[in-house]
Amino acid sequence: MASRVTKFSKTIVPMMDRVLVQRIKPQQKTASGIYIPEKAQEALNEGHVIAVGKGLITQEGKVIPSELKEGDKVLLPPYGGSTVKVDNEELILFRESEILAKIQ
Amino acid sequence: MASRVTKFSKTIVPMMDRVLVQRIKPQQKTASGIYIPEKAQEALNEGHVIAVGKGLITQEGKVIPSELKEGDKVLLPPYGGSTVKVDNEELILFRESEILAKIQ
Amino acid sequence: MASRVTKFSKTIVPMMDRVLVQRIKPQQKTASGIYIPEKAQEALNEGHVIAVGKGLITQEGKVIPSELKEGDKVLLPPYGGSTVKVDNEELILFRESEILAKIQ
Amino acid sequence: MASRVTKFSKTIVPMMDRVLVQRIKPQQKTASGIYIPEKAQEALNEGHVIAVGKGLITQEGKVIPSELKEGDKVLLPPYGGSTVKVDNEELILFRESEILAKIQ
Amino acid sequence: MASRVTKFSKTIVPMMDRVLVQRIKPQQKTASGIYIPEKAQEALNEGHVIAVGKGLITQEGKVIPSELKEGDKVLLPPYGGSTVKVDNEELILFRESEILAKIQ
Amino acid sequence: MASRVTKFSKTIVPMMDRVLVQRIKPQQKTASGIYIPEKAQEALNEGHVIAVGKGLITQEGKVIPSELKEGDKVLLPPYGGSTVKVDNEELILFRESEILAKIQ
Amino acid sequence: MASRVTKFSKTIVPMMDRVLVQRIKPQQKTASGIYIPEKAQEALNEGHVIAVGKGLITQEGKVIPSELKEGDKVLLPPYGGSTVKVDNEELILFRESEILAKIQ
Repeated sequence: MASRVTKFSKTIVPMMDRVLVQRIKPQQKTASGIYIPEKAQEALNEGHVIAVGKGLITQEGKVIPSELKEGDKVLLPPYGGSTVKVDNEELILFRESEILAKIQ
Repeated sequence: MASRVTKFSKTIVPMMDRVLVQRIKPQQKTASGIYIPEKAQEALNEGHVIAVGKGLITQEGKVIPSELKEGDKVLLPPYGGSTVKVDNEELILFRESEILAKIQ
Repeated sequence: MASRVTKFSKTIVPMMDRVLVQRIKPQQKTASGIYIPEKAQEALNEGHVIAVGKGLITQEGKVIPSELKEGDKVLLPPYGGSTVKVDNEELILFRESEILAKIQ
Repeated sequence: MASRVTKFSKTIVPMMDRVLVQRIKPQQKTASGIYIPEKAQEALNEGHVIAVGKGLITQEGKVIPSELKEGDKVLLPPYGGSTVKVDNEELILFRESEILAKIQ
Repeated sequence: MASRVTKFSKTIVPMMDRVLVQRIKPQQKTASGIYIPEKAQEALNEGHVIAVGKGLITQEGKVIPSELKEGDKVLLPPYGGSTVKVDNEELILFRESEILAKIQ
Repeated sequence: MASRVTKFSKTIVPMMDRVLVQRIKPQQKTASGIYIPEKAQEALNEGHVIAVGKGLITQEGKVIPSELKEGDKVLLPPYGGSTVKVDNEELILFRESEILAKIQ
Repeated sequence: MASRVTKFSKTIVPMMDRVLVQRIKPQQKTASGIYIPEKAQEALNEGHVIAVGKGLITQEGKVIPSELKEGDKVLLPPYGGSTVKVDNEELILFRESEILAKIQ
C-alpha cells in the first residue's frame, strides 16, 4: 500500500479537516485460494488514510491538527463522505469527525 | 470480559469523544439452567465500555477527557450509535454524550 | 420513597447533565379506599429525581452543576426522555433542561 | 388573583429560564350581566405570571435573570409552551424568550 | 398615528428584541375619493413601530439595544411574526432581525 | 441608474446586514434594435445595490460593516431574498452573506 | 487557461469565503484523436479556481483568508454550489468549506 499512499498523497491535499480514505476491498479468495463470488464478498467498513488536511479551523481562526496521519487504518461510518474518482480509483473524503476509530 | 476489553482496546482507538461499547447479550438460560428461546430473550440496553477516545475537542482546541473508562458498565440509548463488525463481534461506537448513564 | 432513591442512586450515575427520574404512579384507589379501574387512573406528569449527573459540560470544559438533587419532586415534559428498565422498574433519563419545574 | 399566585408560586419553581403562566379566561358574561355561551367566548392570548425560574444559564455558567416577575400580565404566543395540570388548574410553562410582551 | 403609538406603547412592552408593529392599511379610496372595493385594495408590507423591547440579550448577558424606535415606519417580511389582538386592533410582534428595513 | 439609487437609498434603510438590490432587467431588444419577445428574454442573476444596512451585529454587539456599497453590481443567488414593492418597483432584500459576488 | 483566469478574476470578486470555480470539461476525444460521443464523456468533479473572496468572517469580525488561490485545481463536491452564467460560460460559486481537496 505504501506506493499508493505516496502516489495520491502527493497529488491530493484535502481541504481543512478533511481526510482522504481508500476503502479496504473485501477478501476475494479464501485462505486456501478459492475465489469468493463477488456477491458473497463481505463489504468492509475499514480504510486506509491516504492524505490529511491541515486541520479544523476554529471560529478564532486557530487550526486544530488532525489526530490522523497518512497510512493510518480507520473504521469508517456506514454513511456519509464524498466519493471521488481519481485515476480510476474510488477514494472517499470524510470530515475527520466522521471517522469512527483508528485501528492499531 | 477482561480479555475482550484487552483484545479490542489494544486495536481500536475511538476518535475524539467516541466510546466503543459492546452490548450485553440477553440471558440465554434461566437461573435453573433451562434455555430461553431466542424470541423470549429480553433485549438489554446495557453495555461494557471497550475503549474510549481521547475526548471532546472544543472550539478552542481544548480536549475534555471522557467521564468513562475501559470496563465501565453503561446504559445505552435505544437509538443511535454506529455498529461495526470487528472479528465477527458486533461493537457500537457512540459519542460520549449519547451514553445515558454509568452503572456501578 | 427514601429506600428507592437509595437503591437506584447507588447503582445508576447519569451522564453529564442527565437526571434519572421515576414517574409518580397515578392514584389507584379513592380516598375512601375504592379501587379506581386502570383506565380511569389519571396519568401524572410528576416524578421523583432518583439521581443526578455531575452537570452540564460547557464548551470551555467547565461543569455547571444541576439545580436538582436526589429526592426532588419535578414536573415532567409530556414528551422526550429515554425510558430504561432497571430491575423491572421503568425509569426515565432527561437532560436537566427538559425538566419543567421543581415542586416544593 | 393574588391568592392564586401565592398558592402556586410557593409550590412550583420553574427550571432555568422557564416562566409559569396561567391563561386569562375569556369573559363569561357581558357588561350588563348576560352570560355569553361558551362557543362565543373569545380565546385570549393573555396570562398572568405565576412563578419565574432563576434565569437563563449561559455557556459560561452565568445566570441571566428573567425580565418578568410574579404577577406580571403577559402576551402569550399562539403556539408552544408545556401545559401541566396542577390541583385541577391548567398552567403553562414557557421559556422566557417565548413570551411576546408584558402588559402594563 | 401619534395618539395610537402613545396608547399602545404605554401598555404593551415587547420582550427582549421584539418589536410591536401595526401594519399600514391599504388605501381605501382613490385620490379622487372613490371607494376601492376591499378585494382590489393592495396589501401593504409596511408598518409603524408601536413599541420596542429593551434589546437582544447575548450569550454574555449583554443587551444590544434595537436600531428601531417608536413611530418608525418599517418594511415587513411577507411571513413570520406573531399576530395579537389588543383592544380589537391587530398588532404584530416581530424579532427585530425579521424587520427588513426602515423607511425614512 | 444613478438617479434611482439616490431615490431609494434616501428612503429605504436596510436593517442590520441586509442589502437592498434591484435585479437588472433582461435585454429587451437586440444590438440591431429588434425587440426580443418577453419569453425569449434571458433572466439575469445580476443586480445593483441600492442601499446597505449598517452591518452584521455579532454576539458581542460589535458591528461588522458590509463589503458592499451603494451602486455595486452583484451576482444574486437563484433563490432567497425578500421581494418588496416600493413605488411600483420590485426590489429585493438579501442578507449580505447571500450575495454571491461583486462584479467589477 | 491562464487567460480565462485573468479574464474573470478581474471582473468577478466572490463575497466572503466564496470561491469561483470553473468545472473542467470531460475529455472530448481519445488519445488517438477520435471524438467521444457526448453521452460517453465522463463527468468530472474537478475544477479550476478562477477567483477567491477575501475570506471567512468570524463572529469576532476577524477575516480568515482562504487556503486556495487563483489557478488552483480542486476536487468539487457532487452537490451544492451556485451556478452562474457569465459571458456564456457556466461558473460555480462554492463556500470554501465545500471544496473537497486541492490537486497538486
